Amino acid sequence: MSGHLDAVLARVDAGLEQSLERLYALLRIKSISTDSAYKAECQRAADWIVGELKGIGFAAEAHATPGHPVVWAKGAAQEGPHVLFYAHYDVQPVDPLNLWRSDPFEPTLATDAHGRKIIVARGASDDKGQMMTFIEACRAWQAVTGSLPVTVSLMLEGEEESGGKNLPPFMEAHKTELGAADIALVCDTDMWNRQTPSITTMLRGMVGEEIEITCADKDLHSGMFGNAARNPNQLLAEIIASLRAPDGRVTLPGFYDDVAEVSPEIKAQWQGLGFDEAAYMAQAGLSIPAGEADRSVLEMLWARPTCEINGMIGGYTGDGFKTVIPAKASAKISFRLVSGMVPEKIRDAFRKHVEAMIPADCSVRFTSHGGAPAITVPSDGTYLQQALRGLSDEWGTPAVITGSGGSIPVAGDFKRILGLDTLLIGFAQIDDAIHSPNEKYDLDSYHRGIRSWVRILAALAV
Amino acid sequence: MSGHLDAVLARVDAGLEQSLERLYALLRIKSISTDSAYKAECQRAADWIVGELKGIGFAAEAHATPGHPVVWAKGAAQEGPHVLFYAHYDVQPVDPLNLWRSDPFEPTLATDAHGRKIIVARGASDDKGQMMTFIEACRAWQAVTGSLPVTVSLMLEGEEESGGKNLPPFMEAHKTELGAADIALVCDTDMWNRQTPSITTMLRGMVGEEIEITCADKDLHSGMFGNAARNPNQLLAEIIASLRAPDGRVTLPGFYDDVAEVSPEIKAQWQGLGFDEAAYMAQAGLSIPAGEADRSVLEMLWARPTCEINGMIGGYTGDGFKTVIPAKASAKISFRLVSGMVPEKIRDAFRKHVEAMIPADCSVRFTSHGGAPAITVPSDGTYLQQALRGLSDEWGTPAVITGSGGSIPVAGDFKRILGLDTLLIGFAQIDDAIHSPNEKYDLDSYHRGIRSWVRILAALAV
Repeated sequence: MSGHLDAVLARVDAGLEQSLERLYALLRIKSISTDSAYKAECQRAADWIVGELKGIGFAAEAHATPGHPVVWAKGAAQEGPHVLFYAHYDVQPVDPLNLWRSDPFEPTLATDAHGRKIIVARGASDDKGQMMTFIEACRAWQAVTGSLPVTVSLMLEGEEESGGKNLPPFMEAHKTELGAADIALVCDTDMWNRQTPSITTMLRGMVGEEIEITCADKDLHSGMFGNAARNPNQLLAEIIASLRAPDGRVTLPGFYDDVAEVSPEIKAQWQGLGFDEAAYMAQAGLSIPAGEADRSVLEMLWARPTCEINGMIGGYTGDGFKTVIPAKASAKISFRLVSGMVPEKIRDAFRKHVEAMIPADCSVRFTSHGGAPAITVPSDGTYLQQALRGLSDEWGTPAVITGSGGSIPVAGDFKRILGLDTLLIGFAQIDDAIHSPNEKYDLDSYHRGIRSWVRILAALAV
Repeated sequence: MSGHLDAVLARVDAGLEQSLERLYALLRIKSISTDSAYKAECQRAADWIVGELKGIGFAAEAHATPGHPVVWAKGAAQEGPHVLFYAHYDVQPVDPLNLWRSDPFEPTLATDAHGRKIIVARGASDDKGQMMTFIEACRAWQAVTGSLPVTVSLMLEGEEESGGKNLPPFMEAHKTELGAADIALVCDTDMWNRQTPSITTMLRGMVGEEIEITCADKDLHSGMFGNAARNPNQLLAEIIASLRAPDGRVTLPGFYDDVAEVSPEIKAQWQGLGFDEAAYMAQAGLSIPAGEADRSVLEMLWARPTCEINGMIGGYTGDGFKTVIPAKASAKISFRLVSGMVPEKIRDAFRKHVEAMIPADCSVRFTSHGGAPAITVPSDGTYLQQALRGLSDEWGTPAVITGSGGSIPVAGDFKRILGLDTLLIGFAQIDDAIHSPNEKYDLDSYHRGIRSWVRILAALAV
C-alpha cells in the first residue's frame, strides 16, 4: 500500500482548495456546546460530518446522548492495526465578540504579520481544523486506492468544551467494539514549533468547580448596611486570594502531596528543546511568570498543577455605579492536575477550604464541572515510533516527544474504559488563540497536517 | 395661616387616592439615570414634575444640563423664611429583574407580611415617593388657602443615583437666587422606626472608584498559560482581599487618620435610642456583623467609614464552563466617609495601594465615580427645632435626631456653594429595599409624610 504514498500526497496537494472549502462549511456551523442556545447547531455539525464520512466509505452515524451527539464511523477491515481516531466538533463560546476582527463563524483566509496564510474562525484550530486533517487524509487514500492502509474507526465528540460527561458512558456502552482497536489517535494538540512536529505523551488532568456564595437574603444599600453586612464580593475575593501563597504555590492542604518531581532525565530532555521563556510569555504580552517562584515556565506548564479563576462575578457590573451590597457572588475555578493527582481528592480539599471560610450566617453552593486525572503515554511503543517516523518524513525534522499544559480527558478514558494507549498528534501552533478572539489555524498546519496523516497511516501499516 | 392647619390636613386625607394616582404616574416613568438607554425617560420624568408644579402655582422649568435636567420651581414670596426643597426624581437600575415579584415600573398597592399597605415600585421610597410627600403637601395648602405658609422653592435632581456631577455647577450658576433661601429641606432619609420620626444631622460622604486590571493582551487558554500568565481575576481578588484586615479594619494607610471617635455624649444619646443590633441584621437575613470587630453596628453605620465592593467581574461568567485566563478584570468600589475625612485623600491612598500591587507587566485603569465629604448639621438651630415640633405633632411621639450610614452629597453642596444648612427629613423605613428588588414605600409613610410636611411648613411660618 505504501507504494501509493506519493500519489496520495499528490492528490492532497491537488485537492487542497476543495479540502479548505469543506473545512469552511464545518466552521460556519455554530456548534458551541456549553450554551444550550446552540443545541441544534451541534446536531447540525454532527450530521454534516456523518454525511462527509459516508461519502468516503465509512459506516457513520450520529449517536444521540443526553447532551450532544457522538459521531461514530467504521471503515472497512484491513490488514494490520486498527486505529480509533478521536477529535471534537464542538467549539468554545466566542465572547468577547467585539475583539474579533471578522465574524467568528464566517471563516476567512487572512495573512498574518509574518506573511503566513491563516484560516481565521472559531474552531479553526480547536478542533475542527485538526479533525479535518485526518478526514481529508482518509479521503485522499480512498480516492487513490479505493481503501485505507489500516482499519480506521472514528469517534468524534460534541461536548469536549463543556465537560464531556456523556462520552465515557457512550464508550462504556460500546466497550467491546470500540476496544477492539489497537491504538487511539487524538488530534487536539500543538506542534513543538512551526518546523518541528511532536507527539505529546504527558497531559494534565482537570477539576472544574463553580462556587456561589450567598450572604444577605437580598441586595442591600451599601449606605444602610455597609460595614455591618457581609459583602459576598469581599468574601469571595478573600477566598480566591487565599488559594495562592505570595510565592505562587497553591495553598490547599495536600495539593502537592501526589505531585512527583520531574526526573533529571526528563529535565535534560526538556533542556534540549531550547524553550524560550521570554518568547513564550511575550506571546501573551507578558514578561513576568506568575506561578511558583522556583519553577521554570516549562515545568509550570507541563509538570505542575494549577489553580486558575476562569470567571467571577458579583454585584453591579453595568454602566455607571450602583452602591449595592449584593446578596450573591460566584466564581468558576479550574485546577489542572499532573500525573498522580486524584481529581476527587483535590475537589474535596478545595470544598473543605472554602467551607471553612464561610461565616455561619452565609452559605456556599458548589457545582462540579467535571474532573479527569492526568495521563502519561509510554514513550517506547511500536505505534509511537511508527507515527514519529511518518511525522519526521513529512516535516524533514525529527519529531519530538513533549508534554502539554492542557487537559484531554478522553485519553484517560481510552486507557481506563477501553484499555487503549493514545497517540496525541496535532498541528496547532501556540499562537492559534484557541478559546480567544481571532482563533486561527495556519494554512500550512492544515495542508501538511493532512499530508502527515497520509504518511502516518502508511507508517502504521508497515 | 396656622389657623388653616386642620382644614389642610383634612384635605390631605380626603385627597389621598388622587395623591397616590399622581405618585403612580411618576413611578411608571423609567428614569434610571446611570444607564444612557433611559435618557429620554429622565427627561420625561422632569417634564411631568414641571407640569405638576405649574398646576399648583409654581414657576417651574426643567433646566438642561450635560446630563439629565434639574427641575427648578419658585413659589410666590410669603412672610417668614424661604425654604429650598430638594429631592431626586431619578432611580436605581432594577436588575436582577427576576427577583421582582411585580413589574418595577408598574406600581402596585400590596399588603406586607405584617398586614401593612405598601406601594411597590422602583423609586417608591428612593426618592419619588418621598419627593411627592412634599409636593402633595404644597398642593393641599394651595387648595385650601390659595398660597403657602412660607416661601418655597424646589430644586429636583435627575442624577443622584449616578454621581450627580451636574448639580453643583447648576448651583454655582444660580448661586445668588438659590442662596437667597434661609434653609434647605431634603427628603431622602429614613424615620427612626415606624412610630418615631427623625431628623438626620450626620451623613456619611462617599468616594466611588472603578478599577480595570489588564494582564495579558488577549484572553488565554488556561491549559496553555495557567500558572505562567498572571490571572487578573486572581490579582483583583488579592487587591480586594488586601483592603480589609481580618479584624474588619480597612487597611489603606491613613484611612482612619481623620476619623474622630464618637463623643461620650453622643454615645449616650445613641444608647437611648434602643437600637436592636440583632433585629437590624435580621432585616438582611444575617446575624453576624461583618465590620470592625470592636465597634457596635450603630457606630459602624453612622460614625465609621466603609470600603465596599459594589461589583466585580472577570472572565467567563455565562452558562457552563470556559477554561480561560481573561485579559481583564474589573471592580466598582465605594468608600463611605465620616466627618473629617477628605475624599481626595482617600482616593489617592486607594490608588497608590492598588498601583503598588500591579506587577510591572500588567496595568490598571482608574475611573472616578464621584466624591463628597460627610456632613454634620448643627443640632440647635431654630428651623430644626420648629421642624422637630411639626414632626412630633403629626406622629404623637417626640421626633429624634439621628445619624445615617448613607451619603447625600447635596447637603454638603448646599453648605459649600449656597451657605445653607440642611434639614434632612424623610419617611422611609429601613425595610424599604431601596436599590434592591421589590422596593416599596409604606402607604402610611406616604400619607403621614404629606401630613408631616403640611405641619412643618406651618411650624416654620411661626
